[in-house]
Amino acid sequence: MVTGGLGFIGSNLVHRLARLGARVRVVDALVPEHGGDLRNVEGLDVDIEVCDVGDSRLVTMLSDADAVFNLAGQVSHTASMVDPERDLLYNTTSHARMLEMLRQVRPQARVVHTSTRQVYGRALRTPVDESHPTLPLDVNGVAKLAGEQLHLVYAHAYSMAITSLRLTNVYGPRQRLTSNELGVLPVFIRTALRNETIELFGDGSQRRDCLYVDDVVDAILAATADSAAGRVFNVGNDIDHSLADIAQIVIDATGSTGQVRCREWPADHQRIDIGSFRSDSTAIATAIGWRPAFELDEGMRRTATFYRDRPWYLS
Amino acid sequence: MVTGGLGFIGSNLVHRLARLGARVRVVDALVPEHGGDLRNVEGLDVDIEVCDVGDSRLVTMLSDADAVFNLAGQVSHTASMVDPERDLLYNTTSHARMLEMLRQVRPQARVVHTSTRQVYGRALRTPVDESHPTLPLDVNGVAKLAGEQLHLVYAHAYSMAITSLRLTNVYGPRQRLTSNELGVLPVFIRTALRNETIELFGDGSQRRDCLYVDDVVDAILAATADSAAGRVFNVGNDIDHSLADIAQIVIDATGSTGQVRCREWPADHQRIDIGSFRSDSTAIATAIGWRPAFELDEGMRRTATFYRDRPWYLS
Repeated sequence: MVTGGLGFIGSNLVHRLARLGARVRVVDALVPEHGGDLRNVEGLDVDIEVCDVGDSRLVTMLSDADAVFNLAGQVSHTASMVDPERDLLYNTTSHARMLEMLRQVRPQARVVHTSTRQVYGRALRTPVDESHPTLPLDVNGVAKLAGEQLHLVYAHAYSMAITSLRLTNVYGPRQRLTSNELGVLPVFIRTALRNETIELFGDGSQRRDCLYVDDVVDAILAATADSAAGRVFNVGNDIDHSLADIAQIVIDATGSTGQVRCREWPADHQRIDIGSFRSDSTAIATAIGWRPAFELDEGMRRTATFYRDRPWYLS
Repeated sequence: MVTGGLGFIGSNLVHRLARLGARVRVVDALVPEHGGDLRNVEGLDVDIEVCDVGDSRLVTMLSDADAVFNLAGQVSHTASMVDPERDLLYNTTSHARMLEMLRQVRPQARVVHTSTRQVYGRALRTPVDESHPTLPLDVNGVAKLAGEQLHLVYAHAYSMAITSLRLTNVYGPRQRLTSNELGVLPVFIRTALRNETIELFGDGSQRRDCLYVDDVVDAILAATADSAAGRVFNVGNDIDHSLADIAQIVIDATGSTGQVRCREWPADHQRIDIGSFRSDSTAIATAIGWRPAFELDEGMRRTATFYRDRPWYLS
């Protein structure tokens, strides 16, 4: 089962699983603005259930699942501040319901949950390893951390084989490019593909580590290893770049005629800016041998090719 | 406004505020088993509203509040594992609703929220200061941490004067003694007052720091200082005791004819045992000068006197 399987990372995982010959059940609530889209799995032979991860219909669906890839959630910072209760419902309460159903009907299933590096808030030191304090800056970070911790409570209290992964900034095929709420990378990619100007706040010197979605899919599958059970891992990239460099790499990869321009910080954004951030992914490399395979320029070239052939992602 | 104002710590705070001449509005949902009881504020001239902290009626009640002491919540470990969703509702989602109402109608109110040392989980080192990782072991700890973090997000995102306090084991008057779910201290006190045998798991050598409820009320009031805004503090005791010593102090203070007996750990309890725990409360002492005033034997003597005069707490 892949929850959130019609979304960005979920649908890439579904494509991989289908290619590997797995029987795949996709669960996705198709909540508007969350990133789910039926076209992301077009042509695949998979079961699709349109419902929330906390829906009681999951009791039946979970009862014969061997693995649950629990990727469902709300990812927008802004939306979480506009409607905190809704964010808690999608990132925390629904997951509590799913875990409780799973415990009752299929506790032996392997579970991999996707969390986010946003649970750390501002980096007090870089690179940020898993022992760094978790001080989220917005409701979305609070709700994602609570969802992650619920998974670990179930892992330890009931000896269930559950792993949570704190993902860094992810880019690649099947991301909803039309939103401004899913991080800087899809905004950069959309802007470049439209040959428009990429705007950077400040001087663009803040650094980020980025991951091509195929690397994330590798990490999710690798995290089903026994030695990963009951643990939380960063999934990031040792190689980081300034936002200005990232923007230029995107422009080069897409062959865009757009430019990069720096502008003043909007007053309401600076307060929630986290400065530079780089994940330390030593723990997952040591435990299960995962390391990213794609450098940013190669990942961006593949990304650009994908979207050029499917212009509907831009409209 | 005191939410959870009919409960243990809440009602002690209400008594103090009334004595100081404050106009007090008590909000309490009187959820069965949560500890709220109208008899806890008997004889006081305060307004009482029986509703949840997330109830939309709070919009009106909050609109003229100068201070909100947000103590409402569910405190039972076991109940949180039996019904995770309910715990998330009372400790997280309801607080998100309250904070959003407050932001809209009375952002200038001073807010003090009570969290718990359980957000830390097992002590990786002692004493435990605020930089210790927060790795809760049960759903209650996850939900309380999320509630605390929501308060801090509102403090920082909207410049609201909000403080959260991570309380250690608290004892004293007006605690619901008949529950086994509110920590070891009320169980020890009830057992001693009934002249029954206090049972300790293992050898009783695990250590805890304990606070008399008047010290906690002092900390809550002190936390309204400007220098505490936007921060989270431990509220604990530098002096810790073994559970065996605590049991003996309770027996001596109550004049109980009961005994102390050690027994094997029940299989289902050992997994959630946290070992020894002591809070480091240096940060709150430095920031606002709070320190506990009561030693355990003196606090327990006052506690025993209170309950001997009010036997209904035992039935």
